[in-house]
Amino acid sequence: MFDLSSIFDRLFPICRSITGPGLRESLQILGEYIPLEMHGIASGQTVLDWTVPDEWSVESARLVGPDGSVICDFAQNNLHLVNYSVPHSASISLAELQPHLHSLPHLPDAIPYVTSYYSPRWGFCLTHRQRENLPEGQYTVDIRTKLQPGEVNFATSVLPGETEKTILISSYLCHPSMANNELSGPLGLLRMYERIKAMPHRHHTYVFLLCPETIGSICYLSRFGEEIGKHLVGGMVLTCLGGHRDTLSFKMSRQDWVATPGPIDRLARTFAAQYPNRFEIREFTPISGSDERQFCSPGFNLPVIQAARTVYGQFVEYHTSADDKRFMRIEQVERAADALSEFIEVFDLHDSFLENTHPYGEPQLGRRGLYPTINSPMNRGSSSDGFTDHRTTLNRLLMMLSLADGKRGLLEIAAKIGCGADQLIPILRELQKMDMIKTVLKT
Amino acid sequence: MFDLSSIFDRLFPICRSITGPGLRESLQILGEYIPLEMHGIASGQTVLDWTVPDEWSVESARLVGPDGSVICDFAQNNLHLVNYSVPHSASISLAELQPHLHSLPHLPDAIPYVTSYYSPRWGFCLTHRQRENLPEGQYTVDIRTKLQPGEVNFATSVLPGETEKTILISSYLCHPSMANNELSGPLGLLRMYERIKAMPHRHHTYVFLLCPETIGSICYLSRFGEEIGKHLVGGMVLTCLGGHRDTLSFKMSRQDWVATPGPIDRLARTFAAQYPNRFEIREFTPISGSDERQFCSPGFNLPVIQAARTVYGQFVEYHTSADDKRFMRIEQVERAADALSEFIEVFDLHDSFLENTHPYGEPQLGRRGLYPTINSPMNRGSSSDGFTDHRTTLNRLLMMLSLADGKRGLLEIAAKIGCGADQLIPILRELQKMDMIKTVLKT
Amino acid sequence: MFDLSSIFDRLFPICRSITGPGLRESLQILGEYIPLEMHGIASGQTVLDWTVPDEWSVESARLVGPDGSVICDFAQNNLHLVNYSVPHSASISLAELQPHLHSLPHLPDAIPYVTSYYSPRWGFCLTHRQRENLPEGQYTVDIRTKLQPGEVNFATSVLPGETEKTILISSYLCHPSMANNELSGPLGLLRMYERIKAMPHRHHTYVFLLCPETIGSICYLSRFGEEIGKHLVGGMVLTCLGGHRDTLSFKMSRQDWVATPGPIDRLARTFAAQYPNRFEIREFTPISGSDERQFCSPGFNLPVIQAARTVYGQFVEYHTSADDKRFMRIEQVERAADALSEFIEVFDLHDSFLENTHPYGEPQLGRRGLYPTINSPMNRGSSSDGFTDHRTTLNRLLMMLSLADGKRGLLEIAAKIGCGADQLIPILRELQKMDMIKTVLKT
Repeated sequence: MFDLSSIFDRLFPICRSITGPGLRESLQILGEYIPLEMHGIASGQTVLDWTVPDEWSVESARLVGPDGSVICDFAQNNLHLVNYSVPHSASISLAELQPHLHSLPHLPDAIPYVTSYYSPRWGFCLTHRQRENLPEGQYTVDIRTKLQPGEVNFATSVLPGETEKTILISSYLCHPSMANNELSGPLGLLRMYERIKAMPHRHHTYVFLLCPETIGSICYLSRFGEEIGKHLVGGMVLTCLGGHRDTLSFKMSRQDWVATPGPIDRLARTFAAQYPNRFEIREFTPISGSDERQFCSPGFNLPVIQAARTVYGQFVEYHTSADDKRFMRIEQVERAADALSEFIEVFDLHDSFLENTHPYGEPQLGRRGLYPTINSPMNRGSSSDGFTDHRTTLNRLLMMLSLADGKRGLLEIAAKIGCGADQLIPILRELQKMDMIKTVLKT
Repeated sequence: MFDLSSIFDRLFPICRSITGPGLRESLQILGEYIPLEMHGIASGQTVLDWTVPDEWSVESARLVGPDGSVICDFAQNNLHLVNYSVPHSASISLAELQPHLHSLPHLPDAIPYVTSYYSPRWGFCLTHRQRENLPEGQYTVDIRTKLQPGEVNFATSVLPGETEKTILISSYLCHPSMANNELSGPLGLLRMYERIKAMPHRHHTYVFLLCPETIGSICYLSRFGEEIGKHLVGGMVLTCLGGHRDTLSFKMSRQDWVATPGPIDRLARTFAAQYPNRFEIREFTPISGSDERQFCSPGFNLPVIQAARTVYGQFVEYHTSADDKRFMRIEQVERAADALSEFIEVFDLHDSFLENTHPYGEPQLGRRGLYPTINSPMNRGSSSDGFTDHRTTLNRLLMMLSLADGKRGLLEIAAKIGCGADQLIPILRELQKMDMIKTVLKT
Repeated sequence: MFDLSSIFDRLFPICRSITGPGLRESLQILGEYIPLEMHGIASGQTVLDWTVPDEWSVESARLVGPDGSVICDFAQNNLHLVNYSVPHSASISLAELQPHLHSLPHLPDAIPYVTSYYSPRWGFCLTHRQRENLPEGQYTVDIRTKLQPGEVNFATSVLPGETEKTILISSYLCHPSMANNELSGPLGLLRMYERIKAMPHRHHTYVFLLCPETIGSICYLSRFGEEIGKHLVGGMVLTCLGGHRDTLSFKMSRQDWVATPGPIDRLARTFAAQYPNRFEIREFTPISGSDERQFCSPGFNLPVIQAARTVYGQFVEYHTSADDKRFMRIEQVERAADALSEFIEVFDLHDSFLENTHPYGEPQLGRRGLYPTINSPMNRGSSSDGFTDHRTTLNRLLMMLSLADGKRGLLEIAAKIGCGADQLIPILRELQKMDMIKTVLKT
């Protein structure tokens, strides 16, 4: 498996934004691990209701105090500069400077992350402790950035399957040096790619997407939305996969919100019901979130859920320099990617039905060695509870044979039996080997 | 607005019944305020399962005691005479008289209201206190009434709208001098007529009906039932709109009862769920009620609900002389009519869908001045609760845009957002002005 | 009515099995009470996934101890011999004998009932108390049984009705001398036959089936499954109708399990909801049960429920000599059959709709003597509760007329009114007599 920790260390220092060289460099590094096709849409192009902005690049940015000491230096921490700051050089008083400074009184040692993509601004971000100690006097602002025609970049990768029906795994890449709310997503995507590539049967085709948030998925949809819409059976946006929380959280798609949930929404609810400590549900909302807001806009209305562990806006380190590798924890990202890959393995079967090949009367299991050949009340003395115990393998096998009528899938059968779909996989394989159950594609 | 108090005072003294001059006079008075088309169906005509009865009129009716004192005089209070009493003149003992007297032991100072429309009877109603003091001796009964061929009268009024689809507002007029369970309905109807007439857009055609209870709506349905059935999308019978209760109560239609609720049933339930102190639900029942029992008979099965405040049978003054103007209170009738008019304004939109005109991806709200152009974690320090707060205008706007997919109406959207449909009207108007939402008729 | 007690006494001593002379003799005795058509399928024939086994007959079987005393004698109690024991003669030590002995430590005075139909074995069953006192030494085994080609026998009886639509009443006959879990079923079936034969109108055709459990119903389905599948609207397997419990229990069909319940499932749930002390529901399971496991196998998927009182596996005497007449109690079987016959009488109406013949407006009940002709607030003084009381006959009649729109059956109407369907039968008959309601067949 990929060593996510070392990949993290390569990516973390780069100053990413929704456009520019840092974004491109990050995509290229990721492309060393999985095959990535690169795409770009030029500044000025209309993409859905938006216009691709000019590309932003930073040469240097410094704020120098009255005594000549450096207050903020982009070279030291790229969060110091308001992302998409316009170039600016000036000598101004502290009072004039203040409206351009950003700090967090409630988190006095963290540098906030501030952006102004579509409205020309300049500014510096610094710790509140530092800001409170700024002396009166003249400050030198020296921001050397460029806003010039370029493109929005994004990248895709495909793992083909038996059918054209497609599952999308997507994450975003546009925040500079942050961990949980930036790198946990792309790193989790790398690991899921590995796991899905290793699946013995891949019924579906898998598309992986890495793009800057919002404008990147809008660009992707502008170019590929119609096509992906034809084949997509389910998708998952990865975000904030690390952090302290143990439970993974699915944000449902808009389809679920408007009471027409698709199979991936239903599977997410099934997992959350089955394993309440491992998975939980957030309802869909268009108010906040990641790229699922674009995939789930009413025109596309795609069945794309979002998976997260320590959710944006729910941890105080969110969008600050405190969202670092120690906060994120690599192993939490790995655990998330593993659990989500298991989810996807079950989802890969979502449109298959199970069919008992001997459906008339009970099959005679005794001659197949699957049922006791002697019938005695002997072992029922202590308790009759085990009599219809749904937990034994034999009983689950009997229930699966009864339910496998060619009109039900693994999920419905597991729900009926009252266990997880994953727990039935070994029984299914055994019955498939004996030609007692086959899978048929829902047409 | 109409001065309902003075109209009340004109109508209250008149002796109404299901037929006769008092009914006609009452309709004519109401016709001075709103245009009314008068209808009549002749005695002896078959109307559905019924036969139109002879018309009843009263010249005078007195009960005189052994000492010559007048016990009951119709001229003093028309409730003294059993409604539809046949003519009768006799001198009889108190023992012979008793079966023809009606009083209320539990309400000893009220005169009960008693009717015998379809079985020939005579009788007097009086307070229980008076009855208990009647001395032995010979009583003189002198009832001068007439039962002769005439007609059942009723009246209609129409406010045309953009489509032929029709909303019916109905009330009854057949009880003599009573207030809550008689005049509150027609007076509320007058006020609703005014309010609906003033609506800027009236998508539906409104039919107003005033008729004697039961036989009047049966006559109306006998003549117009087939036609109204073709166009009716919802109706409301007004009854008992006054009295002390603060909450308005909707009696659902039979369609709701048999689990096929139409849009007006659903809207009533929505209002009751949204505003539990202002509206409540009574389930449909054929056992008691007003003219909705006819509209909702299984053959017609029309989507007609009933609206009331202090419901018949649930107040002790019901069907007695104690149901007077002081009990009813004009301002309670006005408040009811106003609330029901607001209900109707929302209902007028029930078959319109909302459609986001920029449904692919999120619309760029920033350039329209609807979204902040700077993104900072600054204001999230104290709490992240406001992050997806459904109560702010911006968040409701985002949710409305997401839900407005041309397949959902205002009600469904409001339910999803978790607020009242009425609370979304200002946002809807704003988005309509910016051409970001349009309404489309459900076809 | 049949004297079930004396029939019991004739059947109890016979050694039945899934084949053989005891089974045939039992069917012939039952055929003296109701007309039975006998069927047989020959050994070696393939029936669904099974093969008809050789027929088993017993000449004698004895186990003799070291001192010559008889330990087990089939002639004394047929449970002493493992059912389907192969012939065996030997002189063996106690240690060699032990694996062939069956007893119950938890029920030391009962002889267990053990079978080995499809795997050749021999063995004896005895009380645990007896077994513990067996001395060391040589034992003589002398089992004189035959396994030779023959047939599996079963019997059917038909009560024709107005339509070909069929209701199946089934029970099994294959256990030797046991009562609740053997004879209670066939005896209950006899009594239900009598009751159903006496019904004034039998809309459906009734098929009664008696067969050895599992292989017998598999033989029946192999021969008649396709035909019965065309006409069957509901079926009921009778088992364990006696014993101490007061409540009857319905095991639902597989159709109910997979969320497509048919009318007999729905009726069972209705009865259980309406009369919670008299009826209860067990969910369908393929893990254990009686012949409904075959009828409800996914290929047939017939709407066959199972009715029981003191359910197999839930009483300690199950499958032992302690399951005798005293445990079963004849009167408990009779009470069960009576209650199930009433259930079937309501079920016979399940596909009829009720239609009000005067559906437009309320019918004028006053002139038919069904409604008071005087209207007065007199009797409402103490309470208005009775006003819409669903318990009075008049109110139920009004509700039935409103609900009888030709699209609803007795059950739905009763559910709506909130009473039992059986409680509406007298009102239905009254309204039918007055030509105010008719029944129409659901087509």
